[in-house]
Amino acid sequence: MSFSKQLPHPLQPLTISETHIARDIVLNSHKNSIIDFRAIALEEPLKAELQPFLDLESKGKLDRETKRPARLARANYDVIGSDKVAKYCESLIDVVKRAVIDQTVVEKPAHAALTLKEFDDVTAAVAASPVFQEEVAKLSIPKHFEVVVEPWPYGGPDEDEDYRRYFQALCFANDTRAKNPDSNFYAYPLPLIPIMDARTKEIIRVDHLATGGSEDGLSYGTSVGNLMDRYCSAEYVPELLSGGLRQDLKQLNVVQPDGPSFKITDGSLVEWQKWRFRVGFNYREGATLHDIRYDGRSVIYRLSLSEMTVPYADPRAPFHRKQAFDFGDGGAGICANNLELGCDCLGHIKYFDSVNTASDGTATVSPNVVCMHEQDNGIAWKHSNWRTGRAVVTRHRELVIQFIITLANYEYIFAYKFDQAGGVMVEVRATGIVSVVSIDAGKTSAYGNVVSPGVLAQNHQHIFAVRIDPAVDGAANTVVTEESHAVPTSAERNPRGNFYEVVQNEILKSTSLDAAPQLNRVIKMINPNIVNPISGHPVGYKFTPMDTQLLLAQPDSIQARRAQFAKHHVWVTKYRDGELYAGGRYTLQSKDEIGGVSDAVKRNEDVTNTDVVVWSCFGLTHNPRVEDWPVMPVDIMQLHIKPADFFTANPALDVPSNRNLTSTLIRDDSCCSKLEPKL
Amino acid sequence: MSFSKQLPHPLQPLTISETHIARDIVLNSHKNSIIDFRAIALEEPLKAELQPFLDLESKGKLDRETKRPARLARANYDVIGSDKVAKYCESLIDVVKRAVIDQTVVEKPAHAALTLKEFDDVTAAVAASPVFQEEVAKLSIPKHFEVVVEPWPYGGPDEDEDYRRYFQALCFANDTRAKNPDSNFYAYPLPLIPIMDARTKEIIRVDHLATGGSEDGLSYGTSVGNLMDRYCSAEYVPELLSGGLRQDLKQLNVVQPDGPSFKITDGSLVEWQKWRFRVGFNYREGATLHDIRYDGRSVIYRLSLSEMTVPYADPRAPFHRKQAFDFGDGGAGICANNLELGCDCLGHIKYFDSVNTASDGTATVSPNVVCMHEQDNGIAWKHSNWRTGRAVVTRHRELVIQFIITLANYEYIFAYKFDQAGGVMVEVRATGIVSVVSIDAGKTSAYGNVVSPGVLAQNHQHIFAVRIDPAVDGAANTVVTEESHAVPTSAERNPRGNFYEVVQNEILKSTSLDAAPQLNRVIKMINPNIVNPISGHPVGYKFTPMDTQLLLAQPDSIQARRAQFAKHHVWVTKYRDGELYAGGRYTLQSKDEIGGVSDAVKRNEDVTNTDVVVWSCFGLTHNPRVEDWPVMPVDIMQLHIKPADFFTANPALDVPSNRNLTSTLIRDDSCCSKLEPKL
Repeated sequence: MSFSKQLPHPLQPLTISETHIARDIVLNSHKNSIIDFRAIALEEPLKAELQPFLDLESKGKLDRETKRPARLARANYDVIGSDKVAKYCESLIDVVKRAVIDQTVVEKPAHAALTLKEFDDVTAAVAASPVFQEEVAKLSIPKHFEVVVEPWPYGGPDEDEDYRRYFQALCFANDTRAKNPDSNFYAYPLPLIPIMDARTKEIIRVDHLATGGSEDGLSYGTSVGNLMDRYCSAEYVPELLSGGLRQDLKQLNVVQPDGPSFKITDGSLVEWQKWRFRVGFNYREGATLHDIRYDGRSVIYRLSLSEMTVPYADPRAPFHRKQAFDFGDGGAGICANNLELGCDCLGHIKYFDSVNTASDGTATVSPNVVCMHEQDNGIAWKHSNWRTGRAVVTRHRELVIQFIITLANYEYIFAYKFDQAGGVMVEVRATGIVSVVSIDAGKTSAYGNVVSPGVLAQNHQHIFAVRIDPAVDGAANTVVTEESHAVPTSAERNPRGNFYEVVQNEILKSTSLDAAPQLNRVIKMINPNIVNPISGHPVGYKFTPMDTQLLLAQPDSIQARRAQFAKHHVWVTKYRDGELYAGGRYTLQSKDEIGGVSDAVKRNEDVTNTDVVVWSCFGLTHNPRVEDWPVMPVDIMQLHIKPADFFTANPALDVPSNRNLTSTLIRDDSCCSKLEPKL
Repeated sequence: MSFSKQLPHPLQPLTISETHIARDIVLNSHKNSIIDFRAIALEEPLKAELQPFLDLESKGKLDRETKRPARLARANYDVIGSDKVAKYCESLIDVVKRAVIDQTVVEKPAHAALTLKEFDDVTAAVAASPVFQEEVAKLSIPKHFEVVVEPWPYGGPDEDEDYRRYFQALCFANDTRAKNPDSNFYAYPLPLIPIMDARTKEIIRVDHLATGGSEDGLSYGTSVGNLMDRYCSAEYVPELLSGGLRQDLKQLNVVQPDGPSFKITDGSLVEWQKWRFRVGFNYREGATLHDIRYDGRSVIYRLSLSEMTVPYADPRAPFHRKQAFDFGDGGAGICANNLELGCDCLGHIKYFDSVNTASDGTATVSPNVVCMHEQDNGIAWKHSNWRTGRAVVTRHRELVIQFIITLANYEYIFAYKFDQAGGVMVEVRATGIVSVVSIDAGKTSAYGNVVSPGVLAQNHQHIFAVRIDPAVDGAANTVVTEESHAVPTSAERNPRGNFYEVVQNEILKSTSLDAAPQLNRVIKMINPNIVNPISGHPVGYKFTPMDTQLLLAQPDSIQARRAQFAKHHVWVTKYRDGELYAGGRYTLQSKDEIGGVSDAVKRNEDVTNTDVVVWSCFGLTHNPRVEDWPVMPVDIMQLHIKPADFFTANPALDVPSNRNLTSTLIRDDSCCSKLEPKL
């Protein structure tokens, strides 16, 4: 107790004080320049330092003599010299020793991730741009509309574009007659995209957008006149709904009279139902989980959402530049919602805060960026003995660690869910407002669906990468594919044709592979050194790769070149410190994946019985429905990571099967009459 | 009100009185024979009679003049004449007119579905069999074990077997020293399968079972001596757990202070959140849903679990005969659990009863075979306005209609789930005890996994068929596949390589097809006559076929021949009255699928703009883990049926976004310290 209070845990995000120490060290090392901070965040310790510490910790053997991993900050910042040119630097700083460990100038082809301040710059630049104002004037927008400028990353630049930093902005109009700041401006898309040069902060051009339909092909369409007449309002805030709210939904409350079953100590250490893990958080990945153990045995060293890309499929320029990398371009953590009690989950909720850095390096607390709670998810296991009629049934209780990000129009709800049977699930829910552009009145398009009059929701994909750094009973793990193969009929092997063979293949070298549901392909992460005493097979954890559609963009397209990770369902790599990002550390405005998982695989390293990392990629081809407008119902994807001969029996066997005494019987007189009708 | 009380609704299961009317009519029509009833149940009305009735009903226009569909019972029974040979008959009886409408003698190759009474006959026959007693004696089972005989259908007979009715039984031993009738006898499998001839009710032979390991191949193994020494107990009832129950799981209650949001009238009519449908139940399919409408518009005429097959992959005779059709062989409804308040769901629960028929035709109520309740399933939709910071977030409330069946060792939890965004989901959870056989001590097997000492859980598949009879804004529907295809780069169509094409194909003739996730294949059921006013596309509902492994048994095997439905993910057929069963009406001991969906497809009928039926097949290749023992944690499969341009906006837009006032904040002092550490 006394010990852990002295210094934050090695996995604890930087505190405000630590952030300020790092800030001051950076400022001191660049005394004659202006420093514009982009981020200051914990640099997680090297595994060689952290792993022994965590192992001791899990055994309760930490003491004052224990060697602690260095407490490092990574500071990302622009150095603006007397020439006014910004040089992007990253520094590693030991915040205990108060020393700079490493300093790098990041150069072409990499761009620094964007900051929200840069987005503010875009809004200001557009407002100040005479070119933009001229273009808007041509649209004859009625006075009661105000123009809304929504900054976006520039996407992938064209092949022949220079290495310069740009931003684009989608533009909409907001009907001020609603007298409500939350009136939905996305119902009024403007066919203009202004482009800002990030160095000069000037609008360098305004791209005109196609508004045609199927009959216009790649050309821009014809009826640009009377733009605003084509639209209708599409509100979602309750006070603006024309039909009002449904009145017949009764309360459903989750009540935990004895409190939650979880315990939090040391700020980030969670213990729940034999699980024990650390919750981390950073501006890029959002919530991360560390040192996941079950009943004292290690399962996963680190589990994270690593990257996602959202390429849009409208071929009309400049729509091919609608491609976001929502983790690498800006940061999922930065965009995390500040959650509210009673809105984002039910029951007893524990929130975790994060620390954000302003451009002057000042750190502030961003409250409630992660929530944790328990929930019931139906039956966990049941058996009725047919001889006695006795049923034993247990509930499937889950512990949910959730964060939600808003990226302009869109939101993603990410959750890690633990269960009592040794399972961990990563869930993604896509919701929010689909990205829309203008379409001429009455037209339909092959590039998307008309979801509101004059509003085209463009076809797109969302492809996610989950990074699993397994530690199945220790770091030395092997990845095995297990498939179920049909076997030809033969007297020797399959006399009646009912046999199928379970085929295992060890992954020997770092590689990519795809889902194969028709072979029932399962990815097993095993510890080849430890045998399950019951089955005689190595202990392991497994998942079935989700067979969702991979990236559809052509291999030679910029969209595909910069999102190599999205081209396979599974990647297996040898662990390397700091190699956390499937699409590479620098995704903003990339033309190619820079140091992503596709590069890691190229090292062609041995991956048996060693420290291996498994990446699971999956997604959603989203051809919008009208029902996705104006806010789409959640689309849910789940990656289930389950024990496979890790335990010696169902680990949820000892879950109490108590009857819930608050459940209430609904009686209904009319229903009883069905048994005895009046004929 | 007065009207509906007079006669049961046409979809209401037969009442006790109606069942007895049917019974008496059958008995009167066979006065000189012994009648052994197998089932008496509602024969659902012809669609031509029912559809107009339901349409009037939905408009509130039923009156005394409305023509009601005939109220029919189907009685299945054996007629045992003076020759003592049982002749299996099915009669259709009008229970209002009290008249026999049709009477059929069912003959080769069909067998009647089994009854639980026949299972009792098996148990009695085995107990009385000297041959079996002799075989058991050879096993040298200690006295404190009692032999447990678990009847099974005979599976698919061998090619050269006669058309006779058999039953097999798996055998286990129960350790009576536990002095608990719920001690788990599956931990002690005996290597014997007695076979009963159903006509003579005699054990005609006792099959010996292989107990070898990988080294023994198809041969039987060697160490049959000291059989019982190899086993260990494997208990699951709480009082027998050696380690006791976990103590740290706190209560989680679902409280609905204002009651449920659903309404039930007329015994089976459910109204909830703009949904309205009828709950049916029958001994074969369990709970069925009828006339599903949203906000007055019809969506689905009938939704049901149609069939499932569970083939085992152990090639050693007689294990190839372990193949159950749990709907057709015996009946899922017959095996439905009588659910208990507070065990199988939380909150406010409405139960539905069913009526069972004894072999003398006496009908009795089987209480609580279906439960219905509401549950919260996380966030339904959310958007935060980045300009104002205001978030609107709604909860995803679901209405669950659930039934659970126990089939000897195994259980399935089936649920239909409705949401507020126009979605219907069919969920299957597999749980219970995996089917096991004996394996020599210390051996492992290619045919399964050792889950307990001496206990081999054999590899197997579960393949389910869901029958969807769509009625998207009326009966005249068309099925369309929609796929997303990559498009080569070209100046004309795809200048930057980011475009993908959405390709639709109408299904013209009845057919089968498979999942194709790499094309993002979606099955749309559209009404080609009604266009969505927003998108300009036909109104529709869609589902993504689950890409789970299809049947692995060889095409020429009996296992595969009798389970044709399990060979494709989707079947599209023209509606025909009574064609409800994917694997055919008669599955018990079949060698080929008899009148199943594969035969229906062969009619090669036009299926555009007509009354069409869509069958979705999916499953689970289950190579057991040690964690599946002794009772397996649920394995969950979900089929999501969602609107696709059926509505003019997200139908859940009007769901209130009220904050839940009972949610509770967990404060934790130690966690606050992370922001200001003591360095």
